Amino acid sequence: MPQGILTTLSQSDGGYKYDYATVPFLAEVFKLIISGLFLWREMRTSPSATARITKDWKSVRLFVIPSLIYLIHNNVQFATLTYVDTSTYQIMGNLKIVTTGILFRLFLKRKLSNLQWMAIGLLAVGTTTSQVKGCGEASCDSLFTAPIQGYLLGILSAGLSALAGIYTEFLMKRNNDSLYWQNLQLYTFGSLFNVARLIADDFRLGFEKGYWWQRIFDGYSLTTWMVVLNLGSTGLLVSWLMKYADNIVKVYSTSMAMLLTMVASIYLFSFKPTVQLFLGIIICIMSLHMYFAPPHTLVDLPVTNEANPKTLKQVLVEDKTDS
Amino acid sequence: MPQGILTTLSQSDGGYKYDYATVPFLAEVFKLIISGLFLWREMRTSPSATARITKDWKSVRLFVIPSLIYLIHNNVQFATLTYVDTSTYQIMGNLKIVTTGILFRLFLKRKLSNLQWMAIGLLAVGTTTSQVKGCGEASCDSLFTAPIQGYLLGILSAGLSALAGIYTEFLMKRNNDSLYWQNLQLYTFGSLFNVARLIADDFRLGFEKGYWWQRIFDGYSLTTWMVVLNLGSTGLLVSWLMKYADNIVKVYSTSMAMLLTMVASIYLFSFKPTVQLFLGIIICIMSLHMYFAPPHTLVDLPVTNEANPKTLKQVLVEDKTDS
Repeated sequence: MPQGILTTLSQSDGGYKYDYATVPFLAEVFKLIISGLFLWREMRTSPSATARITKDWKSVRLFVIPSLIYLIHNNVQFATLTYVDTSTYQIMGNLKIVTTGILFRLFLKRKLSNLQWMAIGLLAVGTTTSQVKGCGEASCDSLFTAPIQGYLLGILSAGLSALAGIYTEFLMKRNNDSLYWQNLQLYTFGSLFNVARLIADDFRLGFEKGYWWQRIFDGYSLTTWMVVLNLGSTGLLVSWLMKYADNIVKVYSTSMAMLLTMVASIYLFSFKPTVQLFLGIIICIMSLHMYFAPPHTLVDLPVTNEANPKTLKQVLVEDKTDS
Repeated sequence: MPQGILTTLSQSDGGYKYDYATVPFLAEVFKLIISGLFLWREMRTSPSATARITKDWKSVRLFVIPSLIYLIHNNVQFATLTYVDTSTYQIMGNLKIVTTGILFRLFLKRKLSNLQWMAIGLLAVGTTTSQVKGCGEASCDSLFTAPIQGYLLGILSAGLSALAGIYTEFLMKRNNDSLYWQNLQLYTFGSLFNVARLIADDFRLGFEKGYWWQRIFDGYSLTTWMVVLNLGSTGLLVSWLMKYADNIVKVYSTSMAMLLTMVASIYLFSFKPTVQLFLGIIICIMSLHMYFAPPHTLVDLPVTNEANPKTLKQVLVEDKTDS
């Protein structure tokens, strides 16, 4: 998941030589091909697999909804960035962890203990801590100075992002369909929406950069291809998590991956290590333990002898008295 | 406990017009007088109170130890500051929370659950987070660049500070003696050590500022007296906590007081509110709840209906199907 690292490495002279909008499209196509291959293999090896394919349009059309939510989310994201700067936007992005917890409870009816709620809050606090601007960095007091619309749109953005995840988990778990068949539907709509976006870009630019199929592969380097493969693989992993784990496992995975990326960046790009990154990592690890550890291992008291208020005296004083 | 605020207010033209070393001495004397008065009242009103006074020298001499530990601690503190700057020293000061937990377990044999250990660690992380240097502040990369001696002395300092607290708790709880009698012994030694320090200063300065009793009250304003009274009252409160509560309650009280002071400083001295202060407050409140809340309220799952994977479908989809 070191998407940030690869994306940075894929730049040349501080900018992209390729059209970045083509990357998510190719990643969707990559996921579509992989899922198609796996589905084909599954159907060939086990004849019963066809039973796990629901082709009913009433079911298939549900898979368009995640793409629709992402489309709305992208536009809200764009609107948010007209009110707030990117670092405020990044800090507000951590709200997604909390909204995921809330929608997980509301829509998927999953019960969480108070400790697990605290763990989710703490994860958001931990990732935010790691992103706190260090001393010497520019644009200081931007966080509390954006107009109210910026914060409201940021909350909406966090809600939509969580909704996409929660809805996908519902889709993947609602029946016993093959994961690869579900992916095939998801990524078909995903590819279509991405093509639509590229075509929209063509019209917006008045075709001055040519047609979208001419822009694909243009200026691609080996690193660009690695960005595509990495984005695609991450997507397949998330889809697997939605089917066999859940959204909370996903937010922990992505948060930990983000922290690991920040640590790796210290070595790869000679970034300065900050106290806040160190603190953020401790907070997130504690949160992880609070959420997933069996409750009794957390709250049980160790079985030892009763408290003995004379012990310190024995240790510190009676030794002296003897001398 | 807003010691920092009062101390800042007591300065004029950015410096002290009075000898700051006289403040802790007068605070000790203040505590001694108050404890004496309370002891006198206690002995007058209840004749049985004399039974709760142990005058045995073997017991009295134990009360010199906290003063001795503080004396060593002050010197270690001074040595630490020759290796690290004040902001690194402040950050390392949060280690005291963790060392207090460890000595609390080791010497007072108090049992803590894993969650309570995590809460103590989190409290230290929370107070540290609130102190992270904001952007625009000077002296950035000092924290990871001090010589190893600085860090070792910082750890020793945190250990000594915790030891003083743990030893005092042991002293206050080891028998049923009156709190005021115990205070009287503690503050008599405290006053003596502070006088010794003032005399030592006299010799060090070659009496160029006169004798120590001439320096007391010199340049004192109303605010200086408030600093003395506040330091004394805080000391009496801590002593009460050591007798009837414990060191962990004390570290939570002082941490929360520190955060409140930082929030108050935003209004009083027009300090800029920082994200890290906000995050630190959330972390410390969560830690407080984790440590003191009854464990079953933390880990029990709420009693509701079983998870129903069809619910989202009912809400989002079947409404549409009808139309």
